[in-house]
Amino acid sequence: MKPVLVRELIGETLREERFAQGRTLRDVSGAARVSLGYLSEVERGQKEASSELLASICQALDVPLSSLLMTVGNKLAAAELKTRLAKAA
Amino acid sequence: MKPVLVRELIGETLREERFAQGRTLRDVSGAARVSLGYLSEVERGQKEASSELLASICQALDVPLSSLLMTVGNKLAAAELKTRLAKAA
Repeated sequence: MKPVLVRELIGETLREERFAQGRTLRDVSGAARVSLGYLSEVERGQKEASSELLASICQALDVPLSSLLMTVGNKLAAAELKTRLAKAA
Repeated sequence: MKPVLVRELIGETLREERFAQGRTLRDVSGAARVSLGYLSEVERGQKEASSELLASICQALDVPLSSLLMTVGNKLAAAELKTRLAKAA
Protein backbone atom coordinates (compact mmCIF):
# COMPACT_ATOMS: atom_id res chain seq x y z
CA MET A 1 0.00 0.00 0.00
CA LYS A 2 1.39 3.40 -1.00
CA PRO A 3 2.05 5.45 2.14
CA VAL A 4 -0.03 8.58 2.52
CA LEU A 5 2.00 11.76 2.24
CA VAL A 6 1.41 14.80 4.41
CA ARG A 7 1.43 17.16 1.43
CA GLU A 8 -1.37 15.17 -0.24
CA LEU A 9 -3.56 15.44 2.85
CA ILE A 10 -2.72 19.12 3.28
CA GLY A 11 -3.67 19.76 -0.35
CA GLU A 12 -6.87 17.75 -0.12
CA THR A 13 -7.90 19.57 3.07
CA LEU A 14 -7.18 23.00 1.60
CA ARG A 15 -9.20 22.15 -1.48
CA GLU A 16 -12.12 20.85 0.60
CA GLU A 17 -12.13 24.09 2.57
CA ARG A 18 -12.01 26.21 -0.58
CA PHE A 19 -14.88 24.22 -2.10
CA ALA A 20 -16.88 24.50 1.11
CA GLN A 21 -16.55 28.28 0.83
CA GLY A 22 -17.53 28.20 -2.85
CA ARG A 23 -14.37 30.03 -3.83
CA THR A 24 -12.19 29.77 -6.92
CA LEU A 25 -8.47 29.10 -7.17
CA ARG A 26 -8.12 32.62 -8.56
CA ASP A 27 -9.85 34.17 -5.57
CA VAL A 28 -7.88 32.29 -2.92
CA SER A 29 -4.52 32.56 -4.68
CA GLY A 30 -5.05 36.31 -5.01
CA ALA A 31 -5.98 36.70 -1.36
CA ALA A 32 -3.00 34.58 -0.29
CA ARG A 33 -0.64 36.34 -2.72
CA VAL A 34 0.54 33.08 -4.21
CA SER A 35 0.36 32.20 -7.88
CA LEU A 36 -2.68 30.30 -9.10
CA GLY A 37 -0.44 27.54 -10.47
CA TYR A 38 1.35 27.16 -7.15
CA LEU A 39 -1.90 26.90 -5.18
CA SER A 40 -3.24 24.39 -7.66
CA GLU A 41 -0.12 22.23 -7.32
CA VAL A 42 -0.28 22.43 -3.52
CA GLU A 43 -3.96 21.40 -3.58
CA ARG A 44 -3.13 18.42 -5.76
CA GLY A 45 -0.35 17.35 -3.38
CA GLN A 46 2.27 17.89 -6.06
CA LYS A 47 4.21 20.58 -4.28
CA GLU A 48 5.28 21.00 -0.66
CA ALA A 49 3.94 24.32 0.65
CA SER A 50 6.56 26.27 2.60
CA SER A 51 5.54 27.19 6.14
CA GLU A 52 5.19 30.84 5.12
CA LEU A 53 2.93 30.12 2.13
CA LEU A 54 0.88 27.61 4.10
CA ALA A 55 0.24 30.35 6.67
CA SER A 56 -0.79 32.76 3.87
CA ILE A 57 -3.16 30.27 2.28
CA CYS A 58 -4.80 29.49 5.63
CA GLN A 59 -5.15 33.20 6.32
CA ALA A 60 -6.76 33.70 2.90
CA LEU A 61 -9.23 30.91 3.75
CA ASP A 62 -9.71 32.28 7.28
CA VAL A 63 -8.84 28.86 8.70
CA PRO A 64 -6.43 28.67 11.64
CA LEU A 65 -3.29 26.78 10.69
CA SER A 66 -3.79 24.73 13.86
CA SER A 67 -7.18 23.51 12.57
CA LEU A 68 -5.66 22.50 9.25
CA LEU A 69 -2.96 20.47 11.02
CA MET A 70 -5.47 18.85 13.35
CA THR A 71 -7.64 17.82 10.39
CA VAL A 72 -4.60 16.45 8.56
CA GLY A 73 -3.47 14.68 11.75
CA ASN A 74 -6.87 13.02 12.05
CA LYS A 75 -6.85 11.93 8.42
CA LEU A 76 -3.35 10.52 8.86
CA ALA A 77 -4.39 8.64 11.99
CA ALA A 78 -7.18 6.99 10.00
CA ALA A 79 -4.75 6.11 7.19
CA GLU A 80 -2.23 4.69 9.66
CA LEU A 81 -4.89 2.51 11.23
CA LYS A 82 -5.94 1.25 7.80
CA THR A 83 -2.31 0.38 6.97
CA ARG A 84 -1.87 -1.40 10.29
CA LEU A 85 -5.04 -3.43 9.78
CA ALA A 86 -3.99 -4.33 6.24
CA LYS A 87 -0.62 -5.59 7.55
CA ALA A 88 -2.31 -7.61 10.29
CA ALA A 89 -4.70 -9.27 7.83
CA MET B 1 4.99 39.43 17.25
CA LYS B 2 6.76 37.13 14.83
CA PRO B 3 4.33 34.50 13.53
CA VAL B 4 5.13 30.94 14.50
CA LEU B 5 6.12 28.78 11.55
CA VAL B 6 5.05 25.18 11.15
CA ARG B 7 8.59 24.02 10.32
CA GLU B 8 9.87 25.49 13.61
CA LEU B 9 7.28 23.59 15.63
CA ILE B 10 7.88 20.40 13.66
CA GLY B 11 11.62 20.71 14.32
CA GLU B 12 11.15 21.47 18.01
CA THR B 13 8.80 18.51 18.42
CA LEU B 14 11.13 16.11 16.61
CA ARG B 15 14.03 17.26 18.78
CA GLU B 16 11.98 16.88 21.98
CA GLU B 17 11.10 13.34 20.95
CA ARG B 18 14.71 12.47 20.12
CA PHE B 19 15.87 13.87 23.48
CA ALA B 20 13.13 11.98 25.31
CA GLN B 21 14.49 8.79 23.77
CA GLY B 22 18.05 9.75 24.69
CA ARG B 23 19.18 9.36 21.10
CA THR B 24 21.81 11.25 19.11
CA LEU B 25 21.43 13.07 15.80
CA ARG B 26 23.77 10.46 14.34
CA ASP B 27 21.59 7.58 15.49
CA VAL B 28 18.29 9.01 14.24
CA SER B 29 19.68 10.36 10.97
CA GLY B 30 21.18 6.93 10.26
CA ALA B 31 17.93 5.13 11.05
CA ALA B 32 15.96 7.60 8.91
CA ARG B 33 18.52 7.51 6.09
CA VAL B 34 18.82 11.28 6.01
CA SER B 35 22.06 13.18 6.43
CA LEU B 36 22.97 14.36 9.91
CA GLY B 37 23.20 17.95 8.68
CA TYR B 38 19.72 17.77 7.13
CA LEU B 39 18.14 16.39 10.30
CA SER B 40 19.89 19.03 12.36
CA GLU B 41 18.57 21.81 10.09
CA VAL B 42 15.06 20.36 10.22
CA GLU B 43 15.19 20.18 14.03
CA ARG B 44 16.28 23.82 14.21
CA GLY B 45 13.40 24.85 11.93
CA GLN B 46 15.80 26.03 9.25
CA LYS B 47 14.70 23.60 6.57
CA GLU B 48 11.28 22.38 5.45
CA ALA B 49 11.21 18.60 5.65
CA SER B 50 9.67 17.01 2.57
CA SER B 51 6.71 14.72 3.25
CA GLU B 52 8.82 11.68 2.41
CA LEU B 53 11.66 12.59 4.77
CA LEU B 54 9.28 13.60 7.52
CA ALA B 55 7.74 10.13 7.28
CA SER B 56 11.22 8.55 7.44
CA ILE B 57 12.24 10.59 10.48
CA CYS B 58 9.00 9.71 12.30
CA GLN B 59 9.51 6.06 11.46
CA ALA B 60 13.08 6.22 12.79
CA LEU B 61 11.71 7.70 16.02
CA ASP B 62 8.84 5.20 16.07
CA VAL B 63 6.36 8.07 16.36
CA PRO B 64 3.26 8.03 14.16
CA LEU B 65 3.24 11.00 11.79
CA SER B 66 -0.32 11.65 12.95
CA SER B 67 0.91 12.14 16.55
CA LEU B 68 3.57 14.56 15.40
CA LEU B 69 0.98 16.63 13.51
CA MET B 70 -1.44 16.59 16.44
CA THR B 71 1.29 17.81 18.78
CA VAL B 72 2.28 20.53 16.33
CA GLY B 73 -1.40 21.45 15.86
CA ASN B 74 -1.80 21.81 19.62
CA LYS B 75 1.30 23.97 19.93
CA LEU B 76 0.07 26.13 17.06
CA ALA B 77 -3.34 26.51 18.67
CA ALA B 78 -1.64 27.78 21.83
CA ALA B 79 0.49 30.21 19.80
CA GLU B 80 -2.57 31.46 17.88
CA LEU B 81 -4.42 32.10 21.13
CA LYS B 82 -1.44 34.02 22.50
CA THR B 83 -1.31 36.15 19.33
CA ARG B 84 -5.04 36.83 19.53
CA LEU B 85 -4.82 37.84 23.18
CA ALA B 86 -1.84 40.11 22.44
CA LYS B 87 -3.83 41.84 19.67
CA ALA B 88 -6.85 42.26 21.95
CA ALA B 89 -4.77 43.81 24.75
